[in-house]
Amino acid sequence: MGLFTKDIKTFDDLFVHTLRDVYHAEHQILKALPKMIDKTTDGGLRDALSAHLVETEGHVRRLEQVFQMLGVEAKAVTCPAIDGIIKEANEIAADVADKQVLDAAIVAAAQAVEHYEITRYGSLATWAKELGREDCASVLVATLDEEKAADTKLTQIAKGRVNAEAA
Amino acid sequence: MGLFTKDIKTFDDLFVHTLRDVYHAEHQILKALPKMIDKTTDGGLRDALSAHLVETEGHVRRLEQVFQMLGVEAKAVTCPAIDGIIKEANEIAADVADKQVLDAAIVAAAQAVEHYEITRYGSLATWAKELGREDCASVLVATLDEEKAADTKLTQIAKGRVNAEAA
Repeated sequence: MGLFTKDIKTFDDLFVHTLRDVYHAEHQILKALPKMIDKTTDGGLRDALSAHLVETEGHVRRLEQVFQMLGVEAKAVTCPAIDGIIKEANEIAADVADKQVLDAAIVAAAQAVEHYEITRYGSLATWAKELGREDCASVLVATLDEEKAADTKLTQIAKGRVNAEAA
Repeated sequence: MGLFTKDIKTFDDLFVHTLRDVYHAEHQILKALPKMIDKTTDGGLRDALSAHLVETEGHVRRLEQVFQMLGVEAKAVTCPAIDGIIKEANEIAADVADKQVLDAAIVAAAQAVEHYEITRYGSLATWAKELGREDCASVLVATLDEEKAADTKLTQIAKGRVNAEAA
């Protein structure tokens, strides 16, 4: 949430501001995921991240749908949180020498991204309902469910192959 | 996870590095929580954050216990993720004019912190088990459970009072 935004006066302002924060986050994730996919050596992990890349494109479109429902401009505001999470993912990827240990690190980095999205979409869906915008809430919940499913899939991968190979 | 760390060669290295990352995160949270508590006007939210501040002190001690179990130095490495999440929390707190809208924003910011911890402790607990360190895993799971409970409590607060007041 950016330094250069206007003051947030109402709950509607907070809702729109947070939508724009996560709109920025989704665009950063669209840039980061292909790099993570390139670095992984585990086929199942690569497939899961590739499937989530396609889903992420859908999440951007859903946010644009919500902006349209609200009659506000679809624009992004700076989001230091996702920027920090992705910076950390890139740093750890550069730090890890062994390829299989790298796969474990990539799973953890991708789960940090998912959890950021889960918390933001969770807040947004709750706020939409409180604001009487069930139409927006249902669109946001659709994405929230996909983020949770992506996180669960990554946990399964971590508990299954990747960690056993790395250890 | 820091720019100035050594290369991570083994799964053990990744485990210790991530412990140090979350050790940094817990210390940053110890500094950030009192500021969030000061800003909130909702009694229930203030109580929940105050209780979690006490828990966070316990999380630092548990991490020190795990470092001791592993026979490695208890030290922190830079963690751009939590730094970004806390920066964003501070920025939004500065941006929000209305006190009740601020409470809703504080809940969301605190949940972003909780979700970062949930994802990191989740990875760490899984890795500890894979590495055959059930002793470390049980300590990490104790913290993970408290982070999840704190997040659930914040969701209840968000769905209950805070949002209804802000809207």
